[in-house]
Amino acid sequence: MIFVDACLRKETPYTPIWMMRQAGRYLPEYMEVRAKAGNFLNLCHAPDLAAEVTLQPVKRFGMDAAILFSDILVVPNEMGMELDFIKGEGPKFGKPLKTIEDIEALDMSAADKLTYVYETIEKVRAELVEDKALIGFTGSPWTLSTYMIEGQGTKTYSLVKKIVYSDPRLMHVLLQKLTDVIIGYLSRQIDAGVNAVMLFDSWAAALEEEKYFEFSWDYMVQIADAIKAKYPDTPVMMFPKGIAGFLDKIYGNFDVFGVDWSTPMELAKEKLGDRYVLQGNMEPTRLYSKEATDEGIDKILNIMGNRAGHIFNLGHGMLPDFKPEMAQYLVTEVQTRSAR
Amino acid sequence: MIFVDACLRKETPYTPIWMMRQAGRYLPEYMEVRAKAGNFLNLCHAPDLAAEVTLQPVKRFGMDAAILFSDILVVPNEMGMELDFIKGEGPKFGKPLKTIEDIEALDMSAADKLTYVYETIEKVRAELVEDKALIGFTGSPWTLSTYMIEGQGTKTYSLVKKIVYSDPRLMHVLLQKLTDVIIGYLSRQIDAGVNAVMLFDSWAAALEEEKYFEFSWDYMVQIADAIKAKYPDTPVMMFPKGIAGFLDKIYGNFDVFGVDWSTPMELAKEKLGDRYVLQGNMEPTRLYSKEATDEGIDKILNIMGNRAGHIFNLGHGMLPDFKPEMAQYLVTEVQTRSAR
Repeated sequence: MIFVDACLRKETPYTPIWMMRQAGRYLPEYMEVRAKAGNFLNLCHAPDLAAEVTLQPVKRFGMDAAILFSDILVVPNEMGMELDFIKGEGPKFGKPLKTIEDIEALDMSAADKLTYVYETIEKVRAELVEDKALIGFTGSPWTLSTYMIEGQGTKTYSLVKKIVYSDPRLMHVLLQKLTDVIIGYLSRQIDAGVNAVMLFDSWAAALEEEKYFEFSWDYMVQIADAIKAKYPDTPVMMFPKGIAGFLDKIYGNFDVFGVDWSTPMELAKEKLGDRYVLQGNMEPTRLYSKEATDEGIDKILNIMGNRAGHIFNLGHGMLPDFKPEMAQYLVTEVQTRSAR
Repeated sequence: MIFVDACLRKETPYTPIWMMRQAGRYLPEYMEVRAKAGNFLNLCHAPDLAAEVTLQPVKRFGMDAAILFSDILVVPNEMGMELDFIKGEGPKFGKPLKTIEDIEALDMSAADKLTYVYETIEKVRAELVEDKALIGFTGSPWTLSTYMIEGQGTKTYSLVKKIVYSDPRLMHVLLQKLTDVIIGYLSRQIDAGVNAVMLFDSWAAALEEEKYFEFSWDYMVQIADAIKAKYPDTPVMMFPKGIAGFLDKIYGNFDVFGVDWSTPMELAKEKLGDRYVLQGNMEPTRLYSKEATDEGIDKILNIMGNRAGHIFNLGHGMLPDFKPEMAQYLVTEVQTRSAR
């Protein structure tokens, strides 16, 4: 598989590409399936439908990898936290974690209950053409814990930071529990057929450097170590969003570092390019304009020297108002311009 | 003034300190005045009340500078855009900018209409003890333009980015207009009595590097140049939030670089410490805990070598649920521990 080869820094005929949130609201065919499911969580819970939307963009655009359609919050949900997706407001946990008792009560067998995810994976892998990869994923322990404590999206992260600074031990109990569950969850995803796994640390930028490594990165590395020990040939990919200032301190046994658009690709290459395959990082909103997309593609391919060690992606997810034609343009142009 | 001396890298008896949003909702005396004013915008418009809340934290805690109480959005408001502060939602422009005609219709005499700001400054300067500085401020052209186009806070910045990538010339027309108004506005603030001026680029992190310098930083430098040419002894301070990845490219004729908490102080010192006085950058939520505050103070003073070239501040604003006692603790401890 071109994508897996690229993750392992092998030579490939061109730079492979996929897009974060490539299965999503900008696609009319996604909206149809989503309407059938009724709501977002139902869609995650229905293997047939989740498999269908996972496959849609790959069938239509021919990118080099599919990414499992699911949500990072299914993990805390199966650990016993009631989850609602409220229209226009995003996800919400009705009873956020407050005390050590709340944390002790979390269900550590969650990985066994996420069977609908493994079924989705099996269905996708059975239908996906052989040379395309399927990427599994999880939220990072830090990002999940933040949702579990704040109950919802937040601007200030004041509840979780109060714990980080005033009661760090409680935080570590929660993070270790999440880490253990996630190791089981990713293992089961790989057993079910994914060809690579990605850790999304969407809220990485909520912490100052010192605390970031203590409360987030170290746990991600723990997960990467466990997965690589069990599945040495399965690429492990990290995506910590918004930590351009911390690149000097990045370490760990993983294969691919996902570069978000706020981190200049040149800087990432200088600091990390020798140690990790880099994935990224076109500013997604360049897709509003053909000229800006052209400029973005050329700039990034040029910086990365159009060589092994790079996977093309956006620096963040597709937005609902993007035009499908632009997704097609991006995929075709990257694959064509990077042909060697 | 200790604060102004520090801005100009002169020796001072200790490291001066002030806090972003030091006048605000965490202070019961602020809440009283705010209630009297009725709403936030009224408070900005009433020089007596605005002066009172500007002075409150300095009188109570003894920090080394007061910062003018106002809002960055008074500028677009006086350029003709109707502004509402909606409870729980934040500021909102009812008719955001859409076309070149909307931009051409903006009132370029806004600086003449912001008389309530200059009156506030005169009142504060008359009452503030002589050795404390008064800081004036503005939003950056980029940050203001973003509000003016999006109409309100945004997660995706998709309206303004559509223009950045598809119609950059329209964006530049707006940014130059804002730059011209802001130069007049800061000049009038200095004429009225402020001892330093600060440019808040709160939404700096919305742009990728190349576009950041084109659409934001270059205009801030233009403003700094104009102000330093007219008022060479008045310090000009920049606060671009969340651009740790761009420090290699920072340039311009200003005095102080405000370091937000997501930018490690060590990195800022290495990249910028020789050229600019650094201001910052304790993670504000450390104030939830005395131990975390102690650790934060010592770490930052230690990195900066407790020397000329540093002004202590938080790396972002005070939050409404902070305890006033912790503000006092921070001010006293920084002034005491940094005494030379």
